[in-house]
Amino acid sequence: MKIRVGVLGATGAVGQRFVQLLSDHPYFEIAEVAASERSAGKHYKEAVAGKWILDFDIPAQIASMTVKECKPGLACKVVFSALDSSVAGPIEEDFAKAGYYVVSNSKNHRFDEDVPMLIPEVNSDHLGIIPVQQKKRGWKGFITVKPNCSLQSYLVALAPLHRKFGVKRAIVTTMQAVSGAGYPGVASLDILDNLVPYIGGEEEKSEKEPLKILGHIEGDRIVDAKGVKFSAHCNRVNIVDGHTATVSVEFERKPTREEIIASWDEFSGEPQELALPSAPKRAIVYRTEENRPQPRLDRMQDGGMGIVVGRLRPCNVFDYRFVCLSHNTIRGAAGGAVLIAELLHRKGMLQ
Amino acid sequence: MKIRVGVLGATGAVGQRFVQLLSDHPYFEIAEVAASERSAGKHYKEAVAGKWILDFDIPAQIASMTVKECKPGLACKVVFSALDSSVAGPIEEDFAKAGYYVVSNSKNHRFDEDVPMLIPEVNSDHLGIIPVQQKKRGWKGFITVKPNCSLQSYLVALAPLHRKFGVKRAIVTTMQAVSGAGYPGVASLDILDNLVPYIGGEEEKSEKEPLKILGHIEGDRIVDAKGVKFSAHCNRVNIVDGHTATVSVEFERKPTREEIIASWDEFSGEPQELALPSAPKRAIVYRTEENRPQPRLDRMQDGGMGIVVGRLRPCNVFDYRFVCLSHNTIRGAAGGAVLIAELLHRKGMLQ
Amino acid sequence: MKIRVGVLGATGAVGQRFVQLLSDHPYFEIAEVAASERSAGKHYKEAVAGKWILDFDIPAQIASMTVKECKPGLACKVVFSALDSSVAGPIEEDFAKAGYYVVSNSKNHRFDEDVPMLIPEVNSDHLGIIPVQQKKRGWKGFITVKPNCSLQSYLVALAPLHRKFGVKRAIVTTMQAVSGAGYPGVASLDILDNLVPYIGGEEEKSEKEPLKILGHIEGDRIVDAKGVKFSAHCNRVNIVDGHTATVSVEFERKPTREEIIASWDEFSGEPQELALPSAPKRAIVYRTEENRPQPRLDRMQDGGMGIVVGRLRPCNVFDYRFVCLSHNTIRGAAGGAVLIAELLHRKGMLQ
Amino acid sequence: MKIRVGVLGATGAVGQRFVQLLSDHPYFEIAEVAASERSAGKHYKEAVAGKWILDFDIPAQIASMTVKECKPGLACKVVFSALDSSVAGPIEEDFAKAGYYVVSNSKNHRFDEDVPMLIPEVNSDHLGIIPVQQKKRGWKGFITVKPNCSLQSYLVALAPLHRKFGVKRAIVTTMQAVSGAGYPGVASLDILDNLVPYIGGEEEKSEKEPLKILGHIEGDRIVDAKGVKFSAHCNRVNIVDGHTATVSVEFERKPTREEIIASWDEFSGEPQELALPSAPKRAIVYRTEENRPQPRLDRMQDGGMGIVVGRLRPCNVFDYRFVCLSHNTIRGAAGGAVLIAELLHRKGMLQ
Repeated sequence: MKIRVGVLGATGAVGQRFVQLLSDHPYFEIAEVAASERSAGKHYKEAVAGKWILDFDIPAQIASMTVKECKPGLACKVVFSALDSSVAGPIEEDFAKAGYYVVSNSKNHRFDEDVPMLIPEVNSDHLGIIPVQQKKRGWKGFITVKPNCSLQSYLVALAPLHRKFGVKRAIVTTMQAVSGAGYPGVASLDILDNLVPYIGGEEEKSEKEPLKILGHIEGDRIVDAKGVKFSAHCNRVNIVDGHTATVSVEFERKPTREEIIASWDEFSGEPQELALPSAPKRAIVYRTEENRPQPRLDRMQDGGMGIVVGRLRPCNVFDYRFVCLSHNTIRGAAGGAVLIAELLHRKGMLQ
Repeated sequence: MKIRVGVLGATGAVGQRFVQLLSDHPYFEIAEVAASERSAGKHYKEAVAGKWILDFDIPAQIASMTVKECKPGLACKVVFSALDSSVAGPIEEDFAKAGYYVVSNSKNHRFDEDVPMLIPEVNSDHLGIIPVQQKKRGWKGFITVKPNCSLQSYLVALAPLHRKFGVKRAIVTTMQAVSGAGYPGVASLDILDNLVPYIGGEEEKSEKEPLKILGHIEGDRIVDAKGVKFSAHCNRVNIVDGHTATVSVEFERKPTREEIIASWDEFSGEPQELALPSAPKRAIVYRTEENRPQPRLDRMQDGGMGIVVGRLRPCNVFDYRFVCLSHNTIRGAAGGAVLIAELLHRKGMLQ
Repeated sequence: MKIRVGVLGATGAVGQRFVQLLSDHPYFEIAEVAASERSAGKHYKEAVAGKWILDFDIPAQIASMTVKECKPGLACKVVFSALDSSVAGPIEEDFAKAGYYVVSNSKNHRFDEDVPMLIPEVNSDHLGIIPVQQKKRGWKGFITVKPNCSLQSYLVALAPLHRKFGVKRAIVTTMQAVSGAGYPGVASLDILDNLVPYIGGEEEKSEKEPLKILGHIEGDRIVDAKGVKFSAHCNRVNIVDGHTATVSVEFERKPTREEIIASWDEFSGEPQELALPSAPKRAIVYRTEENRPQPRLDRMQDGGMGIVVGRLRPCNVFDYRFVCLSHNTIRGAAGGAVLIAELLHRKGMLQ
Repeated sequence: MKIRVGVLGATGAVGQRFVQLLSDHPYFEIAEVAASERSAGKHYKEAVAGKWILDFDIPAQIASMTVKECKPGLACKVVFSALDSSVAGPIEEDFAKAGYYVVSNSKNHRFDEDVPMLIPEVNSDHLGIIPVQQKKRGWKGFITVKPNCSLQSYLVALAPLHRKFGVKRAIVTTMQAVSGAGYPGVASLDILDNLVPYIGGEEEKSEKEPLKILGHIEGDRIVDAKGVKFSAHCNRVNIVDGHTATVSVEFERKPTREEIIASWDEFSGEPQELALPSAPKRAIVYRTEENRPQPRLDRMQDGGMGIVVGRLRPCNVFDYRFVCLSHNTIRGAAGGAVLIAELLHRKGMLQ
């Protein structure tokens, strides 16, 4: 018996990815698709007509589902939220209050100190805050969130290094795919033969969210990591999927090149230990070719859930530098959320 | 009476730009086009058939010129070298020895301590080394070079700040257009829906060349600037023309935001003072829109010779950060070399 | 003394091109910019903030103009309409009734039998219908329109052949640039590493409009050409500017290859005879290279007003085939309309 | 026990696809990889270093194989040829003479009247010429070839219509992906923000090869279909994979729209009947959305072996028109050849 799940904001770009990733899942089955009033009442197929962007056909049984409104009353236990941040905040709370387990891709609750913002390989221990959240808010359900897509690559690569050698500061430049902006998102006239060195709000998220993820639970809240600073330059580039980041990093204790690569090779978290269905076999893949990772060649590593790193070399200014890549709408969005739900299930938190 | 000039390596991507920029120039006229043995003897039009990449038609009088070999004996006084670095070294020396004034786009002599590597707005005083070069080598002619295209944007923006506030260190990520690799250069399969986070040799040039340019003449050689360090991450992106750089910088003495912008607004060098034909009116244009500069919109600033800067803001790790852009085959290659020649002419060094 | 003109829909993609092309025009000066209520009252610069798409800066005197509503009362004599077709119809009529001379890029009045749809090189004689239009409608002003961007290339190439040899039928496939869809227009996710073999309404326009343009005045109306048929396949491709068309054509009387090329070389209309400022020197440029025309290399022929043709060769099914290209937002939109206005001026119709 | 196969030209773009498609195949196992002298003697991994273009990692057991020269003596029974046409002709003959079964992607033997050029769904009966070929040439092995990538889409869609309604003539415009030109192939500077309306030799192949495929065996040779003509305009567009074609077609007997769609829905050949591993479930998929097929969304239909058709509608000049798409390096190259080999195996011709 699979767990019945719903997708909120199911018609948008991330919602479509949820539908794809959950359409043949060993733990979950899509029982409900919900979206804005405009779409509610239509068949899912009609609701996404003209805006389906995946090279994957809508599964027949989902195509004919009636889209619901995003209100409690859905016949499922877990909801994945791909809602726009202009509406996600209160809707997600309503669901949690009504007893649903919410796994959200939206930014609204990322900085609530009783809401875990998870990259399951990195900070699954933050799930320990859930009972606090439920108690404090009087909820039967709960909210968990995943962080912004921009940082899924570099932060996963930095996390094991931070644990062992202490990251003091890192300067990061991201080159982000257009799918990160949803659909219709980036206008073709803005990006053909061009790049845009600005993404509204993205640099702030890319600098601040890592501190919470690298932080720890202290009493009834999650507190930020201390003594580590990020600076992020975020650029939109002419690529369908896959965010790339160049990273220069300074450590408390400078490791050798071999120690770094060993840290990546050995890095493993609960997703790997539990062999979760969406978990990449190795959390981080280090490639030795001098010109990798590349978005088109590496974004589908482990079904789009892998983190690919390359070009580790000394930095002329800090200690080391390297290049990271992850798939922004799989690992960085829908897939990252599904991985959280898989972890919740295996830890018995979806009862 | 215009000065007769020749273009060495006239059939390649940079050579074509020289032909374009010199085809209707107030000081110079193309008297000779030279290239490899394979092309020598053909009409220029035939020699470039199937590999002309500019949206500018070959001027009629140049189309019918006979391509010569790259050997002294050309009927001109100045030669612009767009030669491949595999052959440029000795050929350029032969020309200088034979009395030609060589302005080179090639890397071969960039680190000769008696060869000035010029960005005319920044270090035109390095021309003072020319008499040393001529004396030491027993040459009637001389060699001047321009630096690599990758650094034309960020170094011009950093130069006035360095003079006033002392740049201690800067971490730069470049996103470089495909035209920088010449023709055929980057394969479409390598760059469509992709980027390549590696350009052979480019990071070394991007870190080392600035030190010489910011340096000074000491006795009979140009010595590197001290106390300043660059780290460069160089990426190839899916853009025809225009290199963009994100820059994070730390100063000896941290200026205010206003001081920085004022430094850029006021920045001016001999090209502006002498109103050289290829000089941008303002050496640096600072744009206030939050999403500029962008390659497609800004690369043709002042005919492709302008440096466009934007997004000055505090850096979370260093003092400030910003974004820079310049046209890589105009300012960063052929146009930069023509500007040097214009300066040489107006300083009476092409007699 | 220049003629004062207004631009309706001045903030959109075509409106911006009008501003560019009219900002330093020998006959016209922009006196008014008008747009939707949302923009009205703002300075033009503010109204286009974040959606300016040209690599050309807004001229200072226009940047500071106050945007008006699109209602008669503008202080000018001529209005260029770049209005969306959802509103253009009645607004253009209101202006004509109020005595303005309207030159429109919109489709609304293209099939009014008393409204000339002009490509000035091809059917400037259709201006003879204007007095009929004014009389019938009781207008002091009038409306003229230009045809859809998709057909500006192939129809101009076919027109001189039709006159001499009679075009019986032509099958055309267009590959159209994204700027043809305005801004934001085509979503990057729809076109990166992709093409879309469908543009709503475009094939109908591409087949029907040519018949009117090749037609003639009969009494008080313009009647379609008889005995000629077009079939158009319209595709959106990943190109900023420039529409390309492949054409297979069958004639009443099959000409020789030389006759066709001679027809193109000799083709000239009133714009050339009157040396209108926006007229290309030659109406059609035939290129002999086997791989031309190409959008990036040829779209700016004669400032974007030229029609470039190549690859004339026998067709295996019809008589001949060839490839055509024109710039869709210059010749195919704003530039085509400005050329009409120049013609009107020189024929004394803007008094 | 799988059949041992070799790949000739294994290091190029099509060769890499063969390696991918054969690396986990139910009938075949790669026993040999062969390439030019330059690669021979190296490990396959080294030989493709820096030119591997697939988002699929080289399988470990193939990575370490030693690349052989392309001469008989390979320890396998079947060879897939991805050789360059400058050398393929005699090499393929040498292998066939030495008893190998050759399945070739190269053009050299396509017009030999005793060599079948196969699209297995369309003309598997042409295999009947093989005994003639073996007898006439005194070979124990044989050569079969697949046609050019450009026609795999439109010809498959036209074939069932031709059988039932007689295709008289068709005018086709192809928009072909860059991978069709191999690696490095199309230079990025030639195709970014551009298209090239010319591919050397492609139009001739696209017009002539269909006649042989639609033809039949007559005595000891395959003769062309009579009474059918194709005209092809071939364009290179800025897409990684997937060739699209627009088709206008005239029939002997004009079918209804429903008859056409029924013909496509019902179309099936030996690959479907034998359920060959690479066969698409349905030979042709007709999509009803108005804007499909699209390369990025449809090229991977049935693992890249499907033919996707859409937009069937009346043609203004001929009877009907529609749009077709297939994956050029899978169905149109390596995958098409593997399908032939699967058919040969199941018909007992690889004993």
